[in-house]
Amino acid sequence: MTENGRTVTMREVAERAGVSVTTVSHVINDKPGVRIGAKTRSRVRQAVVDLGYRPNILAKNLVQGTSRFIGLVADSIATTPFAGQIIRGAQEEAWRHGRVLLVANTEADAAAEQNALAMMLEYQVSGILYSSWTHQALTLPPGLAEAEHVLVNCYAPGTGARAVVPDEVAGGRTATEMLIAQGHDRIAFLNTTSPSPAREGRLRGHREALVEAGLPLDDALVVDALPEQEGGYDAADRVLELGATAVFCHNDRVAMGLYDALRERGLRIPEDLSVVGFDNQEVIAGHLRPALSTVALPHYELGAAGIRVLLGEEEVAPGQQLRVDCPPIPRCSIAPR
Amino acid sequence: MTENGRTVTMREVAERAGVSVTTVSHVINDKPGVRIGAKTRSRVRQAVVDLGYRPNILAKNLVQGTSRFIGLVADSIATTPFAGQIIRGAQEEAWRHGRVLLVANTEADAAAEQNALAMMLEYQVSGILYSSWTHQALTLPPGLAEAEHVLVNCYAPGTGARAVVPDEVAGGRTATEMLIAQGHDRIAFLNTTSPSPAREGRLRGHREALVEAGLPLDDALVVDALPEQEGGYDAADRVLELGATAVFCHNDRVAMGLYDALRERGLRIPEDLSVVGFDNQEVIAGHLRPALSTVALPHYELGAAGIRVLLGEEEVAPGQQLRVDCPPIPRCSIAPR
Repeated sequence: MTENGRTVTMREVAERAGVSVTTVSHVINDKPGVRIGAKTRSRVRQAVVDLGYRPNILAKNLVQGTSRFIGLVADSIATTPFAGQIIRGAQEEAWRHGRVLLVANTEADAAAEQNALAMMLEYQVSGILYSSWTHQALTLPPGLAEAEHVLVNCYAPGTGARAVVPDEVAGGRTATEMLIAQGHDRIAFLNTTSPSPAREGRLRGHREALVEAGLPLDDALVVDALPEQEGGYDAADRVLELGATAVFCHNDRVAMGLYDALRERGLRIPEDLSVVGFDNQEVIAGHLRPALSTVALPHYELGAAGIRVLLGEEEVAPGQQLRVDCPPIPRCSIAPR
Repeated sequence: MTENGRTVTMREVAERAGVSVTTVSHVINDKPGVRIGAKTRSRVRQAVVDLGYRPNILAKNLVQGTSRFIGLVADSIATTPFAGQIIRGAQEEAWRHGRVLLVANTEADAAAEQNALAMMLEYQVSGILYSSWTHQALTLPPGLAEAEHVLVNCYAPGTGARAVVPDEVAGGRTATEMLIAQGHDRIAFLNTTSPSPAREGRLRGHREALVEAGLPLDDALVVDALPEQEGGYDAADRVLELGATAVFCHNDRVAMGLYDALRERGLRIPEDLSVVGFDNQEVIAGHLRPALSTVALPHYELGAAGIRVLLGEEEVAPGQQLRVDCPPIPRCSIAPR
């Protein structure tokens, strides 16, 4: 808009640059196969800047029948303490490809979700990422199939939907290996009570690491705990009774609760008990005393990979999952045995 | 789109409903002043559903010269542990008004910010919320003035920009009053070392509460601390030397660090020292032992109020700030003196 609020037209740009409207259009749209001299291009660009001309993207989309938009439907990612990195990853990757991310946060409400999907379809998005803040299996909402779609941090069994998820099995293996590497051979695992891919996957990885190290599988060492501070706090006595020298906690919040309980009993981490968490939750993990060694959930990478799959840059077969690494984050809560 | 991927046209809807294209258009766009019988309306709507017709919003926007979009430019809100509630508040309020929120997360990068603003202007947003994850004074980026705009959780001194910010002064007063109400009269304040509206405002509110209660203002009781766990941990000895019976911590993370330090010294909260935090940070406040009494930063309400100001539903004069309440969240960390 000009200073008096009037929209600058392509004709005015053409007049200022001393070229035709067609030439302006070709320069602005970087039309391939059209030969325009460098000086002319530069004059048009200068006129665009001088006048503050903005090409009308809506008109362009209308002609092309699709938009630069990619939709991201999130249950509560934007409002969840750490899964917001999914949005950041998706957005930065979308920008790298000249796309704009349209984010709708539905708080897992079915009606809000239907509205969000309808809105995205109306805006002719070129594809939709459908994402969840916890890794879970779910059924696809009606409408999603009307656009190209990729599931992020969730998957839909029995459908052809492609998904990008954290590699829970490898993550569980990594956490356990961090303890084994320091000589621990009696390792408790405070696993979540919630049935989930995280619960099953991390347990499988934990067992794989034990087997690979030639350690016995002892089911008594796997203890159910609520996946938050209170779960870790309440499980402390059980862990001590088991005679474990190290504990793998299902997440960092469980580790934080366990820290509190051990302190109340006069025990020190890592001297009396080594602890490893999972998630690398920003406000907690690095700030516990001692700082918590953990395994990171790759939220940023999940979002970014989702965009790459959607744009065909990374291949995933229909119905298959792309599993993203969960890297180890060593800090100060593991001592040599 | 139909099952074979073809887009359904308004003409097909008209044919199925046995009416003219104009009638379909009037029904879909709820055109005022046009009389169409209830039966006809219902027949058109049924045809829309049967065929899966989606009105082309881009074409509509093009005709109207503006869109249903409202832009939200965020520095790192979407990726910050708790300020994501600003997005949630803005989005739900936008939806209530039939608007769609277009979120761009810039990570405070000037080039990304310029791209985001250009994109939003190209998409003809009807207004832009410009928001920050910490409450701060800033200068307006070029381009923002080209659209209606409201600042959220930040403000731009010397400009005419309207802003919605937390009421830091009232929040500081509330925190201190929670301690005074339990008989405390020697209250330490661990204030942040970062110059900010939060630092100045909460201190002012703290002093106002003391004065109102007839308590002395003792500058020695106001201690500088880094605004995270480490700051609270390191300030513990100073607090104990001062002989305070209660501590107001600049934020919940500072309180968490103070908890750790007090525990190491064998002291109990709240029996030996009462503690109040600020922020009500989800993963921390309710899960400390004992659960932390605190004052909430109203992130959701900041986002929602920003939309209302933008849409003219709430009046704020040019250059003025709308201050939003920070409510008390009583839990278990304050004991009677």
